[in-house]
Amino acid sequence: MKRPFISILTDFGVQTQGIGNMHGVAFSINPEAKVIDLMHGIADFDIVTGARTLETVYFLPVGCHVAVVDPGVGTPRRGIMIQTSRGDYLIGPDNGILLPAARVLGGCKKVVQISNQKLMHQPVSPIFHGRDVFMPAAAHLSKGTPMEEFGPELSFHDLAKAPYEEAECRNGKILAEVIHVNKFGSLHFNIRHEVWDQMGLQKHQQVLMGSDGGSIKFPFVETFGEVPKGKPLIMKDDYLRIEAAINMGNFSTNYGVGQGAKVTFTGV
Amino acid sequence: MKRPFISILTDFGVQTQGIGNMHGVAFSINPEAKVIDLMHGIADFDIVTGARTLETVYFLPVGCHVAVVDPGVGTPRRGIMIQTSRGDYLIGPDNGILLPAARVLGGCKKVVQISNQKLMHQPVSPIFHGRDVFMPAAAHLSKGTPMEEFGPELSFHDLAKAPYEEAECRNGKILAEVIHVNKFGSLHFNIRHEVWDQMGLQKHQQVLMGSDGGSIKFPFVETFGEVPKGKPLIMKDDYLRIEAAINMGNFSTNYGVGQGAKVTFTGV
Amino acid sequence: MKRPFISILTDFGVQTQGIGNMHGVAFSINPEAKVIDLMHGIADFDIVTGARTLETVYFLPVGCHVAVVDPGVGTPRRGIMIQTSRGDYLIGPDNGILLPAARVLGGCKKVVQISNQKLMHQPVSPIFHGRDVFMPAAAHLSKGTPMEEFGPELSFHDLAKAPYEEAECRNGKILAEVIHVNKFGSLHFNIRHEVWDQMGLQKHQQVLMGSDGGSIKFPFVETFGEVPKGKPLIMKDDYLRIEAAINMGNFSTNYGVGQGAKVTFTGV
Repeated sequence: MKRPFISILTDFGVQTQGIGNMHGVAFSINPEAKVIDLMHGIADFDIVTGARTLETVYFLPVGCHVAVVDPGVGTPRRGIMIQTSRGDYLIGPDNGILLPAARVLGGCKKVVQISNQKLMHQPVSPIFHGRDVFMPAAAHLSKGTPMEEFGPELSFHDLAKAPYEEAECRNGKILAEVIHVNKFGSLHFNIRHEVWDQMGLQKHQQVLMGSDGGSIKFPFVETFGEVPKGKPLIMKDDYLRIEAAINMGNFSTNYGVGQGAKVTFTGV
Repeated sequence: MKRPFISILTDFGVQTQGIGNMHGVAFSINPEAKVIDLMHGIADFDIVTGARTLETVYFLPVGCHVAVVDPGVGTPRRGIMIQTSRGDYLIGPDNGILLPAARVLGGCKKVVQISNQKLMHQPVSPIFHGRDVFMPAAAHLSKGTPMEEFGPELSFHDLAKAPYEEAECRNGKILAEVIHVNKFGSLHFNIRHEVWDQMGLQKHQQVLMGSDGGSIKFPFVETFGEVPKGKPLIMKDDYLRIEAAINMGNFSTNYGVGQGAKVTFTGV
Repeated sequence: MKRPFISILTDFGVQTQGIGNMHGVAFSINPEAKVIDLMHGIADFDIVTGARTLETVYFLPVGCHVAVVDPGVGTPRRGIMIQTSRGDYLIGPDNGILLPAARVLGGCKKVVQISNQKLMHQPVSPIFHGRDVFMPAAAHLSKGTPMEEFGPELSFHDLAKAPYEEAECRNGKILAEVIHVNKFGSLHFNIRHEVWDQMGLQKHQQVLMGSDGGSIKFPFVETFGEVPKGKPLIMKDDYLRIEAAINMGNFSTNYGVGQGAKVTFTGV
């Protein structure tokens, strides 16, 4: 890294001094690092949305990415650091939040547990590892401290599971899950653009979405404006995944489909 | 520019990863640029408030100012770049949002369309031009890429109109428009301090505001504390314009006057 | 200071251009300064919470810390600058907000009034001293301008009082005050960790909290998870003070104890 880059994602909300404190700790350890806020508005303890949002580090420079959505803080859950194939380091609790981002960055190359007390902010608060464990780890790493110094290597298979798996296309059909509902009520699925493409849909072709509540038919388009106001559509979102929306409306409340819902897609 | 300066204004809210992504893209292109958040809390698609807020770049260093309030994203509306007399560049959609800021920065010197695909983040999302078109433009510009390389020059007269015009003083009377209601319910008008001064009011002189709902009389003061709690007043705001408020109260709900309302002012 | 550090705390909310304007002013005066946002979500004019939050500069690098929670702006209240024993400068209105932070930074070494017009952003708005007085002061100070140039020295005893005092332990009993209720409804008291330790409690010992509304008994623990869900607890918070909470619940609404409440603690 020429000038090291660090991003921070938390569920602290934007109203709290915790974020300012994390910036201060990073600056104390490495004044040369460029530190940006990726997102702090994840709902409390919402690991699924946290993981989905962390995937967007794909659009950030290679660097150290800290994610603190951590319902297990204060319990013996581990802190970990994942080196990805792209060259990034993902840093946070071992609760699955880091794994979807590791996938979009080419996969995990190596994982270590963060246990070296000398590379933490002392005394370590039992309830604020973002400031005292994870941010110091990112800042030290950004200064060139080797990954091995933070703690013992872990086996990838021993990590807590990802909060969602990747949808696959089988026989032209996709079984998917809603991983995020955005502020407009649009649904985002665990379907990557390239998996969606395996359905072989034409532009404007109709797609059938089946769920517990029945089935909905809508066209596959590129932007909202291709359907009339109030009508549903499905398209590639701007963050690698597939999105169902209503033009100028709220898909989630209108059709009663929310985060975690399982659906099937087939072209018609 | 010694160290280049970039500001960002959007209607993304403060909860979204889109802002973090824009910072990341800027850093990738120009790690030396200082990038600040001007404001992200503009109501969705509210071009009027966006334009009024962008005016406050007057208080920022000369630099590149990106504004993304963009109801037309995904339609053929153009992306543009305006060079101002002060030396700034204003970057965003051609929907009028940039024009009031251009006025306070001394006027437009030159406008080009942003169309050079090589200076965009590829692939360009049809729905997130902030990340893929406007921010890359600002970052490249801040590195010294000449304006001409971004696309063809446009005539100022071909641009979409500003969302509001400047009020003028005629025969001691001003016909004005409410362009913003702040979180305290105070009204901000399309009246510049120097236009207001043309009324020739004395300090503490009474002013009559006439609107559809009747007329209100209040004194022209310098700060809230010059009238009793609960009483109305009019004064110069801290961002170049004129503000009507109630000391410790909500003018807008109290008098039923909101954004877009037309009013007249006369000294009495 | 190697690379100078500035933090900003305000009650502007996170939706306003005022914060962006303050960053711009700092950059204009000292492009080398690292400026971070400590917190902008203090409730309007809430000096108590502002003061408590400013205490967390303890975790930030030594630098200039600006606090703008300023109900008296526009009145003749003074602007001040406090040099602390740790080497920081605290900058803001003379309304008590700076004093608790000065205590945790080792106490006040020197105080001056900010009155030198040449070190302000001109013209000075009567209602936005954050942009025009306090931020310029921090930025000039961060460039090496001596404290004496900003205005006359003041006696510490002439300053407005702090919004709360420090609780003390007498005969194993503490009389305390709620200085903050966080977003989860947990109470934070004006009790420093070392004062609490003077009670000589064992881990998991029961503590009796007496208030106007009766008395509550709960264990002294290290983290939330040491009591069952829905049960109360008391512990050291992650910002130097003592916190009462309900594991996964809201202490404040459940027991009807809010900011400003006076309580007593005794071990049982």
